[in-house]
Amino acid sequence: MRAEIIAVGTELLMGQIVNTNAQYISSGLADIGVGVYFQTVVGDNPERIKESLRIAKSRADVIICTGGLGPTQDDLTKDVLVELIGQQLILHEPSMNKIEELFRKRGVPMVESNARQALMPEHSDPLANDTGLAVGVALTHEGTHYLLLPGPPKEMKPMFDRYAKAWIASKMDAVEPLFSVMLKFAGIGESQLEHSLIDLIGAQTDPTIAPYAKEGEVAIRLTTRARNEVEAQAKLQPLESEIRSRVGDHIYAAQDITLEQAVLQLLSEQGKSLSVAESCTGGLLSDLLTNVPGSSASFAGGIICYTNAVKHKLLGLSMELLEGPGAPGAVSEEAARLLAENVLQITGADYGVSITGVAGPGESEGKPVGTVFVGVAERNGETVVRQTQQSGNRETIKLRAAKSALYQLWRKLKS
Amino acid sequence: MRAEIIAVGTELLMGQIVNTNAQYISSGLADIGVGVYFQTVVGDNPERIKESLRIAKSRADVIICTGGLGPTQDDLTKDVLVELIGQQLILHEPSMNKIEELFRKRGVPMVESNARQALMPEHSDPLANDTGLAVGVALTHEGTHYLLLPGPPKEMKPMFDRYAKAWIASKMDAVEPLFSVMLKFAGIGESQLEHSLIDLIGAQTDPTIAPYAKEGEVAIRLTTRARNEVEAQAKLQPLESEIRSRVGDHIYAAQDITLEQAVLQLLSEQGKSLSVAESCTGGLLSDLLTNVPGSSASFAGGIICYTNAVKHKLLGLSMELLEGPGAPGAVSEEAARLLAENVLQITGADYGVSITGVAGPGESEGKPVGTVFVGVAERNGETVVRQTQQSGNRETIKLRAAKSALYQLWRKLKS
Repeated sequence: MRAEIIAVGTELLMGQIVNTNAQYISSGLADIGVGVYFQTVVGDNPERIKESLRIAKSRADVIICTGGLGPTQDDLTKDVLVELIGQQLILHEPSMNKIEELFRKRGVPMVESNARQALMPEHSDPLANDTGLAVGVALTHEGTHYLLLPGPPKEMKPMFDRYAKAWIASKMDAVEPLFSVMLKFAGIGESQLEHSLIDLIGAQTDPTIAPYAKEGEVAIRLTTRARNEVEAQAKLQPLESEIRSRVGDHIYAAQDITLEQAVLQLLSEQGKSLSVAESCTGGLLSDLLTNVPGSSASFAGGIICYTNAVKHKLLGLSMELLEGPGAPGAVSEEAARLLAENVLQITGADYGVSITGVAGPGESEGKPVGTVFVGVAERNGETVVRQTQQSGNRETIKLRAAKSALYQLWRKLKS
Repeated sequence: MRAEIIAVGTELLMGQIVNTNAQYISSGLADIGVGVYFQTVVGDNPERIKESLRIAKSRADVIICTGGLGPTQDDLTKDVLVELIGQQLILHEPSMNKIEELFRKRGVPMVESNARQALMPEHSDPLANDTGLAVGVALTHEGTHYLLLPGPPKEMKPMFDRYAKAWIASKMDAVEPLFSVMLKFAGIGESQLEHSLIDLIGAQTDPTIAPYAKEGEVAIRLTTRARNEVEAQAKLQPLESEIRSRVGDHIYAAQDITLEQAVLQLLSEQGKSLSVAESCTGGLLSDLLTNVPGSSASFAGGIICYTNAVKHKLLGLSMELLEGPGAPGAVSEEAARLLAENVLQITGADYGVSITGVAGPGESEGKPVGTVFVGVAERNGETVVRQTQQSGNRETIKLRAAKSALYQLWRKLKS
C-alpha cells in the first residue's frame, strides 16, 4: 500500500511553521506497514490543491491531507476534493451540534462560516475530532483512499491515532506485519560504518538494511516481514550477529535510544553516580544527560570550568600547569586527567568525566581547532585520557566532543 | 519568481526526522521576495527523484533540492539531475583537496565513496560548504534554476544563507531591493505580542510586518522595498518607533541575534563577568552561552548542581534549607537567592545567575511541573529572585527557563 501526504497551508510555504504533521503521520504509517512515497506541501489555493491531489491520485493508494478544514474562506480542502470526485458536501449533524453547543456555552453568537467545519462529502465516513471542531473525513473513490485531517497538531494527532490509522488498516490487504531492530552506534562515522558493511548493504533483500545518520549519531535499521516475532527473529538474528561480529564494539544499543540514555541506564544498573568537568563543551554534556527524565538518579552535576581561573579555583589545577611558557596548558592530557579526578573527589561521585579542547573558531594555546581531550576517572580505579580530533563548526565540535566523552564512559562502564 | 523545494531522504518519509530545511529555506526565500509554491519530500529512489524534478520543472523557475549529497550509495541527487539535463559529473578540485586533507589529518584511510561528495555537474557553479564536505551546486538549464544543498541543517543553513540566496537573487529581475529590520523580543509570548500590535499587523501594506516564532524566541521583521538605505529608513523608522512605544521593554535587539548574544555583548561592553548555578536547566544555559564565539571573555563558567548533595557541598546551601518537612526546598526563592549569591562568591565573577525548578515529567517537592525560580546576584549589589511558571515538555521547560534567566539578567544589565 503506497501512501502520500499532502499538507495544505500557505503558512507552511511561507516558512512560518514547520510541517511536523508529515513526520508524525509518516512514522505512524510505518508502524502499520504502510510506506509513504511522497510528502507535499501546497498553499491555500484551490487550483494547486487540485493539482496536488491529481498527481497523488496517479501514484498512491492512500492520500492523507492535513489542513484546510477550518471555518475560514481559506479552508478549501473539502471543497476541492468533492469537486475532484464529483460529490456534494452535506452536514454532519453530530459535529454541527457540537459546534452549536460550544458557542452556546461561550455565549458568543455563531457566525455562519463555523458551520463549514461540520460539512463532509456525501459518501464518506466521519472521523471524530476529540480535541477540536472540524470533522475529519475518510472515503474511497475509484480505488483511492482519501483522508482529510485537521492542520493543528493538537487536533490532527488524536484523530490520526484513534481513528484514521484503524480506518486505513481496515482497507489493507492482509500482509505479514513488519518487524525491525534498530542498532545504534557510537565512536564510528557513517561512511566508516557503511564501508565495514558494504557487502551486506549491497546484497540486502530480506531483511533490509537502512542506515540513518543525524548529527552525532549513526544507526542502522534491519527490517523484515514475518508472521510473528519468532519467525522475525529467525530472520533478523543472523544478520545482526554478522554485523556485531564486524563492528559490535560500537553498538551501544539495539533499540532507538540516545547514547546518553544508554550511559545513564548502565550507571543506574551499576548503582553508580557521575559528575563532569566541562571546559570546551560548556555545559552541553550535562544538558544532554539532563534531557533524559530521571537522570538525577545517576547524574550528580558538575563544574563548567570555562576559564583557567575556574579550573584553578574550583577544580584545583595549578596555574603552573595551565599557563606560561612550556606549560602543558588547559588543553592537555594532564589537565584532562586532573579535571576528571578532581571533579570526582569534589562531588563525591563514582565517576568523573572531563572534556577540554578547542571548539573554535580560533585556535587556542597554539592547538588547532577540534583538538579535544576526554578524561574518565573512576573512584579507586584508573583514569583514562584520550585525545581526539573533531571537525565541524563550533557547535558541531562541542556536540561531537560531548558524544565522544559519552562513548569513552560507555566503554568503561561496559568493560 | 516561483520556487519549489524538494527534500530528498527516505528518513523523512519514514518519519524519523522532520523536514525543518523546507521551513528554513521558505522563510529565507520570503525575505528576498521569492514565493514558494510547493514543497515535496521524496525518498532516496532515482526514479521518484527524477519524477519530482520533472513535475517541479513544469511549474517552477527555481528548484531547490536538499539532501542526497553525501558519500553513500543512497546519495543520488546529483546523479539524477545530470541524467535529467544531459550533463556529466566532474570533480571539483578544491572540495576534493578539502576531503583528502581531512582524512590525512584524522589519519584515517579515505574510502573511494568519499570522493563522490566532491563531484559536480560540468556546467554548474559550486556553492562552498563551510561546515562540511559535500559541495553544493547551482546551475541553470533551459530557463530553470537548480540548487542542490546538503541535507544536514548545519551544512545546509550556512550554504543557503551565504551563497545560495545571493545566487538566486542574481538571477532575479532587477527590482528595488528589500530592506528589513528584525526586532527580537524576550519575556513576552507570541500571542501577547501579536495582541499588542494587532491593529498594526491588520493594517500593514508597506512596510510589511512578519512575526516569527521559534521555541524560546519571538521576533518580528519589518520589510520594505526602497531605492536606498535612507529611503528605506524613512519608511521603517516610524513603524519601529510605534512598536517600541508599545512593547519596547521586551526588545533586546534590532538585529537577528540571540538573547545570549545580546547578554554577552552587554557584559563585554561593561567589562563584567558571569557565572551560573544551574539546577533544573542542567547545563543548558551554559551551553547556550558557550555556543557564542568569544563567550569566554565574559562567561567564567559555573556549577551544575543537579542534586541536593551538590547544592550543599559545592554551593554551601544547608541541608536544613533543602530537605525535611517544612523546609523551603531546592525549588524555592531562598535556594535561588543563595545559589546565585554563592556561585558569584565562589567563582569571583561579577554576576551570578541561578535557575532552580521542576522540569518534569513528574512534580518535585510537591511543586508542579514548570515552577522555576531565577536568581540574579550582582557583586556589591542587590539580588533579585523571580518565580515564573513555564509550560511544555521537559526540554521546552528547560529552554524557556534558561531564556527567562537570560531575560532577567539582560534587564539588570540594561538598568
